[in-house]
Amino acid sequence: MFLPKSILEEKIRTLLEEDIGQGDITTALIVPPETIVEAEVIAKEAGVIAGVDETRALLESVNLQAETLLTDGSRIEEKTTVMKITGDARTLLSIERTLLNLLSRMSGIATTTSRLVNKVRKAGYKTRIACTRKVAPGLLYFDKKAVMLGGGDTHRLHLDDLVLIKDNHLTIIGDITEAVKKAGNAVSFSKRVEVEVANIKEALKAAKAGADIIMLDNFSPQQVKKATKVLEKEKLRDNVLIEASGRITEQNILKYAATGINILSLGELTSSAETLDISLEVTETRMR
Amino acid sequence: MFLPKSILEEKIRTLLEEDIGQGDITTALIVPPETIVEAEVIAKEAGVIAGVDETRALLESVNLQAETLLTDGSRIEEKTTVMKITGDARTLLSIERTLLNLLSRMSGIATTTSRLVNKVRKAGYKTRIACTRKVAPGLLYFDKKAVMLGGGDTHRLHLDDLVLIKDNHLTIIGDITEAVKKAGNAVSFSKRVEVEVANIKEALKAAKAGADIIMLDNFSPQQVKKATKVLEKEKLRDNVLIEASGRITEQNILKYAATGINILSLGELTSSAETLDISLEVTETRMR
Amino acid sequence: MFLPKSILEEKIRTLLEEDIGQGDITTALIVPPETIVEAEVIAKEAGVIAGVDETRALLESVNLQAETLLTDGSRIEEKTTVMKITGDARTLLSIERTLLNLLSRMSGIATTTSRLVNKVRKAGYKTRIACTRKVAPGLLYFDKKAVMLGGGDTHRLHLDDLVLIKDNHLTIIGDITEAVKKAGNAVSFSKRVEVEVANIKEALKAAKAGADIIMLDNFSPQQVKKATKVLEKEKLRDNVLIEASGRITEQNILKYAATGINILSLGELTSSAETLDISLEVTETRMR
Amino acid sequence: MFLPKSILEEKIRTLLEEDIGQGDITTALIVPPETIVEAEVIAKEAGVIAGVDETRALLESVNLQAETLLTDGSRIEEKTTVMKITGDARTLLSIERTLLNLLSRMSGIATTTSRLVNKVRKAGYKTRIACTRKVAPGLLYFDKKAVMLGGGDTHRLHLDDLVLIKDNHLTIIGDITEAVKKAGNAVSFSKRVEVEVANIKEALKAAKAGADIIMLDNFSPQQVKKATKVLEKEKLRDNVLIEASGRITEQNILKYAATGINILSLGELTSSAETLDISLEVTETRMR
Amino acid sequence: MFLPKSILEEKIRTLLEEDIGQGDITTALIVPPETIVEAEVIAKEAGVIAGVDETRALLESVNLQAETLLTDGSRIEEKTTVMKITGDARTLLSIERTLLNLLSRMSGIATTTSRLVNKVRKAGYKTRIACTRKVAPGLLYFDKKAVMLGGGDTHRLHLDDLVLIKDNHLTIIGDITEAVKKAGNAVSFSKRVEVEVANIKEALKAAKAGADIIMLDNFSPQQVKKATKVLEKEKLRDNVLIEASGRITEQNILKYAATGINILSLGELTSSAETLDISLEVTETRMR
Amino acid sequence: MFLPKSILEEKIRTLLEEDIGQGDITTALIVPPETIVEAEVIAKEAGVIAGVDETRALLESVNLQAETLLTDGSRIEEKTTVMKITGDARTLLSIERTLLNLLSRMSGIATTTSRLVNKVRKAGYKTRIACTRKVAPGLLYFDKKAVMLGGGDTHRLHLDDLVLIKDNHLTIIGDITEAVKKAGNAVSFSKRVEVEVANIKEALKAAKAGADIIMLDNFSPQQVKKATKVLEKEKLRDNVLIEASGRITEQNILKYAATGINILSLGELTSSAETLDISLEVTETRMR
Repeated sequence: MFLPKSILEEKIRTLLEEDIGQGDITTALIVPPETIVEAEVIAKEAGVIAGVDETRALLESVNLQAETLLTDGSRIEEKTTVMKITGDARTLLSIERTLLNLLSRMSGIATTTSRLVNKVRKAGYKTRIACTRKVAPGLLYFDKKAVMLGGGDTHRLHLDDLVLIKDNHLTIIGDITEAVKKAGNAVSFSKRVEVEVANIKEALKAAKAGADIIMLDNFSPQQVKKATKVLEKEKLRDNVLIEASGRITEQNILKYAATGINILSLGELTSSAETLDISLEVTETRMR
Repeated sequence: MFLPKSILEEKIRTLLEEDIGQGDITTALIVPPETIVEAEVIAKEAGVIAGVDETRALLESVNLQAETLLTDGSRIEEKTTVMKITGDARTLLSIERTLLNLLSRMSGIATTTSRLVNKVRKAGYKTRIACTRKVAPGLLYFDKKAVMLGGGDTHRLHLDDLVLIKDNHLTIIGDITEAVKKAGNAVSFSKRVEVEVANIKEALKAAKAGADIIMLDNFSPQQVKKATKVLEKEKLRDNVLIEASGRITEQNILKYAATGINILSLGELTSSAETLDISLEVTETRMR
Repeated sequence: MFLPKSILEEKIRTLLEEDIGQGDITTALIVPPETIVEAEVIAKEAGVIAGVDETRALLESVNLQAETLLTDGSRIEEKTTVMKITGDARTLLSIERTLLNLLSRMSGIATTTSRLVNKVRKAGYKTRIACTRKVAPGLLYFDKKAVMLGGGDTHRLHLDDLVLIKDNHLTIIGDITEAVKKAGNAVSFSKRVEVEVANIKEALKAAKAGADIIMLDNFSPQQVKKATKVLEKEKLRDNVLIEASGRITEQNILKYAATGINILSLGELTSSAETLDISLEVTETRMR
Repeated sequence: MFLPKSILEEKIRTLLEEDIGQGDITTALIVPPETIVEAEVIAKEAGVIAGVDETRALLESVNLQAETLLTDGSRIEEKTTVMKITGDARTLLSIERTLLNLLSRMSGIATTTSRLVNKVRKAGYKTRIACTRKVAPGLLYFDKKAVMLGGGDTHRLHLDDLVLIKDNHLTIIGDITEAVKKAGNAVSFSKRVEVEVANIKEALKAAKAGADIIMLDNFSPQQVKKATKVLEKEKLRDNVLIEASGRITEQNILKYAATGINILSLGELTSSAETLDISLEVTETRMR
Repeated sequence: MFLPKSILEEKIRTLLEEDIGQGDITTALIVPPETIVEAEVIAKEAGVIAGVDETRALLESVNLQAETLLTDGSRIEEKTTVMKITGDARTLLSIERTLLNLLSRMSGIATTTSRLVNKVRKAGYKTRIACTRKVAPGLLYFDKKAVMLGGGDTHRLHLDDLVLIKDNHLTIIGDITEAVKKAGNAVSFSKRVEVEVANIKEALKAAKAGADIIMLDNFSPQQVKKATKVLEKEKLRDNVLIEASGRITEQNILKYAATGINILSLGELTSSAETLDISLEVTETRMR
Repeated sequence: MFLPKSILEEKIRTLLEEDIGQGDITTALIVPPETIVEAEVIAKEAGVIAGVDETRALLESVNLQAETLLTDGSRIEEKTTVMKITGDARTLLSIERTLLNLLSRMSGIATTTSRLVNKVRKAGYKTRIACTRKVAPGLLYFDKKAVMLGGGDTHRLHLDDLVLIKDNHLTIIGDITEAVKKAGNAVSFSKRVEVEVANIKEALKAAKAGADIIMLDNFSPQQVKKATKVLEKEKLRDNVLIEASGRITEQNILKYAATGINILSLGELTSSAETLDISLEVTETRMR
C-alpha cells in the first residue's frame, strides 16, 4: 500500500478542506501572520503508531517542516514524542485537528490489531488476523494501512481484487457449486476466488467446486474444527485457505486460532476503532 | 444540516468510488445483468437510526427504489426493518457495503449520543451533550449529523463558524485577556467567541474579557462547580455559557450535569464510535 | 479566514484551469521556452489592496518567485508597485489574466468597503459595515475576505454558521415567535440566531422570542430609529444586535449610522463590485 | 456556448457547494421535511434576462420543478415573473441565494451589454461590442454567455482559441513583425491571429506581417480614425479586422463606432458588472 | 468490472468535459433549441461491439433516450445499427464525438482481442489471452473492460491487486528467492504473487520460492517449452501458472499456445489499439 | 498548448491515481523505504520523442529528480536515453508504468505524424497534415500536443474554438447556405467558420456563403482536384482554405497533396496510434 506523494497529498487535502470551510477564523483573528512555532506531537497512551507517513505528507503539503522521531508501526510507551514540527503558526493551528484525527485513528486501529495479533502469536499460532471492508467510509486506504502496520492482513482493498461470493450472491444464484465454477472459469488468472458459507455442507461444495478460500460465516470454534475435519477427510484441506468471520472477539480469539484455521477476520478492527490519545503542543513561539 | 440532493449525492459518490475500484468483479462474473432483487435493510440491534436520508440519496443516485419505513432519529428495537429496496441486482450488491458502513456508523453514533442525552434528561438536567471536531476525518458532515439525530449538539461545523481560542493559541498569544479582546473586536457580529481555560483564574479572565462561552478543559466536577461559583460571585455567570470538555464519561456524566454546567462535550461520541449492527438481506430475485 | 497553502492553491487552480483550456497557444508559439522575465504588478488607481496572499499562492503553485512589497489591506496611491515577479516567461504570460482578475476584483471590493467604513468612522459612528451572501457565485471566499481586508464585516460565511430566518422562511412557518423559539431551542449553542423582519411589530416579537440579532429589511432611517426606540422602551434593546439591510447607499449611509444601529449590510459591496485597475508589466527579459 | 446537462450541472454544483458548507441549518431547524412550496422568481428591474438555462439546470439537479416563462435573452419590464418553481421547501430555501446570485449576475451583464449594443445599432453602426477575459475568475462561462445573450461578442473563450499577441509578448519578443510571422506560420489553420498595438506604426507592421485582427490599445477615436486611414492607404484595411480596447465608455462609444472600426471591446462589461435585482418569493405552502 | 451508475457517469463526464470546453459553439449558433432528433449509431465494420453500457450511461447522463439493439460483446457484421437515440438535437451533437471515440476504441480493442482468442481456441488451445497495464493512461477501466468483452483476461486492474515482481524490482533486491519469499510472507492471503523472469534458472528459483505465477519475459516458443519441461521435471509445474509476455504476435501466437503455457499477454491489445469504424447518423428531425 | 505546472500536474495526477488504486503492494512489500535508485528512460525504437515536459511534470509532482537529455520533438535513433531519474525507489516503481504509457503514446503519435509530414515536405508540398477530434477520450491535450510536436496541425482543441458545420448539422438544418450564413453572422469575430461538404456543389455553396474553410469529406484526389478547379473558376479559391478528410492514407497522401489542397486531416493519427517502445531501467541502487 505505497502511494506516491501527489496522490497521498490529494487524499489528505480533501480531509482538510472539509474541516477548514472558508478558513480558520480564530487563528486569522488572533495570531500575527509572521509567527513561527515549534511544536511536538505527543502520544499520551502506549500503543502502535500509524499514520506517520500520512502526517508527513500533510505537513509537506502546507509547507511545515517535520522531524520524524519514529517510523510507522513502532511500538511506543505513553508520553512519547512522535514528531517535531516547525513553521508558520497559523498554518499549524489550522491543520492541527485534521492531523490529530488522522494519526489518532490510524494509531488506534494499529494498536488494537497489534494486540490481537500478538495474543495469537504468543499462544504459538500462525493464524492471520484480518480486517474486512467494514471501514469508516472514505477512509478505506487509511484504515487498511493501519491494520497492516499493526501486523494484520488487509483483506480486499477494493471490490476488484478478489472474487468474494457472499450470502446475498448465493441467495440470488441459488447453487454454490454453480456460482464458484462460473466465477472460477471467468475470472482473471490474477485473482483468487473466495466463498462465504453458512454450514459445513456448503463448505464442502465450495471446496469441491474449486474455491481458493472458504469463509466460514458465524461458525463457533467447534464448528470451525468440524469443518476442517470434514475437508481433511475429503483431502480438500490443502487446496483451500479457511477464514472465519463473525462472532470473533478478543476473548475467544485463541479458541478460534486453536482450530488450525488460516485467517480470522474482524470487522470491528476498523468499524469500531478506538483512537489513540495523541496531542499537539506548541513548545516555542518566535517572530519570523 | 440540510444538504440539497446534488451536494449529498456527490459526497456519497466519493465514498462509493473508493470501495469499487475498477468495478465489482464478483457481481459482474456471477450475477446476470437482467436480475432484479428485492431486499431489506435490517437493524439487528436496538438503537437510534441515523443515515436514512443519506442512504436514500445513495440509492437514488444509482437508480434503486427505496421504501423507507423509518425516519432519521427513530428509536428502534432489534430486528427492525429500516427500508426495503428494489432494483438491479448487480447495482445493489456493488453498493451494499458502502450503504451499510454509512448507516451503521451514523446509527452507532446516534445511539450512543442518545443514551447519554437520555441519562442526563432522565436525571432532570438540561445540560447539552455535544460532540467535538474529533471526527473520522472526511466524515465530519455524517458524524455531526448523527450526533444531532441522537439529540446531541453539533458544536463547530467548520473552523469558520465559531471563534474557539484553545491552549495552543494561548501558548502563542500569552495573555488570555488580550486574545479574547482581540477576537471579540475583530470577529463578525454573526459569530460567538469561546475560550478554553485550564483553571478558574483563566475562566474569570475570559469572562471579564467578554467571552461568550468558556470551555473548562479537563476539570473535575468539583472544579467545575467551583468555577461556576466564582463566576456567579463576580456576577459574570449569566453572561457566559460554560462547557466542560475532557475526562467526561458515561459513568461520571451525571456528576458533571449536576454542577449546572451548560454544555458537556465528548470527543469519543465520534472518534471512538461503535457501529450499530445493520445488515442487508435479499428477499426476492426475479428476471427483468 | 485563514486557509493553509494546499487548500488555497486548489481553489486557485480551478480558476486558472477554466481560462487556460488546452493551453496558451500564443505564448507557446512565440515565446522560447528558456525565456526568463522580471515583471511588476502595478496598481494604476489609489485604493486598498487585497488578494496579495492569494496572488502569492497562485505564483508559488506555478513556480514563479514573488517579492511582495505590500501586505493585504494596505492603502495605496495610484501607480504603486504591489509585487515583483521573476521566473519562466511562458508561465507568467499564461497566468497573467487570472492573477489580475483575482487581485483587481478583491482590491476593488476592499476599496469600496474601506471607503464606506471610513465615512462612517470619520462621522464618529461605530456601526459595522457588512456584506451579505450576494457574492459572485464561486468566489464567496475571495469576496468575503476582500470585505474583511477593507474593514468590513463578513457576515455569514456559509449556510451553516448562523441561523438567519428570512422572509420566505416566515411565509412558510407563519409565526415569527414560533420560528425563533423553534430555532433557538434546537440550534447548537455555538451559533447565533438572527431574524429578518418587515416591520416594527415583527421586530418586537423577534426580540421577545429571544433572537440574538434582528435584521430590519428595507427600513428607512426613520423607521430604524423608531424600531430602536420601541425596543428600548420594552427593555429589549440591550439583548439584541440590530442590522439594517436594503436601500442603504453611500449617500444615505450616515443617516442610517446616526440611528445607533449596530450593523449596516450592503449586498452591492460584493454583487456589483468595481475592480481596481491593476496591470502587469514585464520589465526585463533574459535567457535561462 | 452550449453545454450538455451533465457538464452544466457539475459547474453549478461547485457554486452551490461553496455556499452550503455542512448544510443549511436554518432551514433544517424550522422547516418540516414534508413541506412543499410554490415560488416565483421575479425580476424587479427592467432589463435582459440571462441565466434561465443555467437556473433550470440547477433546479433539475436538486429535483425541483421549474416552469420557465421566458427564454434567455428576453427583454423584460420591471416586476416580471421569470419562472415558477414547485417542490421541496427545504431544498428551495437552501439553493435560493445561489440561484439568485447566478441569475442576477448574468442578467446584469446581459442588460448592460444590450444597452450598449442597442445604442450603437440605433445610431446605425454595425460595430460589434465585445467583452474581454476580464471576467470574475471562475465565472468565465457564465459571464461570456451573458454577454452573448445581451447581443455582444464573446471574444476569446480560452487561451487556446485565438492567438492574441499582447504588449507583454512584444516586450519579450521585441519585434512585432517577427512575432506575427512566427505565430502565423506555426498556428493551426483553425485559428486567427490578433495583435495588440500601441501606435499606428505598429498597426501597419502587424497588418503587413499578416495579422488577421489588430487591436488598437487605448487609442482615442481620432487615433482610431487615423489608423484606419493609414491602413486603407496601404490597401491593407480589407485584410484585417480592427478592434479598439481601453478607454471606451458608454459616453464615447458612438464616437468610436463612427470611425468604422469593426470591434469595440470593454472589460467593464464583465469585470464591473452590476447585477439585475431579482428575487424569489414563496407563494404557496402545503404539506406533502 | 461492474460499476454503478453514479461512478460510471462521473468517469464519462470528465471525458466529455475535456472536449466541450466552454460549450459547443457550432450547435449553439445554428441548431434551434427546440429541435428533437432521432439518430442511429452504426458500425461500418464487422467486429465485436464493446462500450454499449458506457454509451448508455453517457446518454442517460445528458437526458437522451437510447434503444440498445445489441449487448456488449456481440459479434456484428458491417453496417450494423448498434443503438437508436432520441432527444434534444443540440445535446446529441455536442456529445457525438465523445460517444463515438469511446465506443470505437472499446470495440476496436474487443475486436482485436476476440480475433486472437478465437485463433487460439479454434486451434484447440485453452491458453488465456491477456492484456497488460500498457493502456491509454486514464482509460484503464475502459480498455480492460473491452479486453474482457473480447474474451480476453484483464490481468491486474490496479497496482494493488496482484503482487508482480518485475525486472526493476529484481535489479533493486538482487535475489529472486528473497524477493518472492518476502512478498509471499507479507502479502494478504487474498492476493497472488507473480514474478517476471529473464531465463529458465530464474523461473526455477521463483517456482521453488513459492510464486503462484511465473512470467517468462521475451522468451521464444522454444524457450517457453524448455522452461515448462524443467519445471515439470522438478515437479513444480502444477504449482504455478506460466505466462509469456513480449514478442508475441498474431503471427506466432499459435506457436506459443502450443507450448502448453497458461497465459499469453500482449501489451499491444490496448497500447496500439485500432478503433472500429462507427458513426452516428441523424435520421429524423422535428420540433418539440 | 502551454500549460502551467499546477494544471499539468493535476491532469497527470488523475492518470496516476487510476492505476495506483489503494497503493502499489509489490513495491511496499519488497523494497525498503530508504532505497534510492538511479534509472534511465530509454527509447528502444527510432522516432520522434514527445511527452518530455509532461514526464518531467509527473516526476516533479512526486519529488523525483529528472535530468532531461532531449527536448520534446527531437528525432532519435533506437536505444537513445531520453532522461535520467534519481530518487526514492518505491516512488519510481509505483509511477513507472504511467510514465511509460504517457511517453510511449505521445512519442508514437509524434513519430507517425512526423513521418507523414516529412513525406509530404520531401515531395515539395506545403500541405498541412492535421489530426481530428478522434483522440483517445480523456487524452485530447496529450494527443493533440503530440501531433504538434510531430509537425502536424492540431485542428480544433475544443468544441468552442472553431465553428465546424458537419454532416449531421446539415441534415438538421437542411440548407448549407443558410447554415453558413447563420453561423457567420452570429459567431464571434475571433473564430473561423468551416463546413464539411459531400460534393462539389455543396463546396461551391459553402464558399459563396462565406465559409472560411471547406472540408471535402471522403473525396478522392481526383474529386479534390475538380473541386479546386471549380472554386478557382468562380474566383472563390483564394477566399477559402480547403481540407480533405477521410480515405487519406500513408500510401495515397502524396496524390492528395498534389492537388494543391491546404490541409489533409487523418483521424488515425490519434485514434489508432501505435506507441513507441520505451522502457525504464534501474541502473543503480543505494540506501539513503
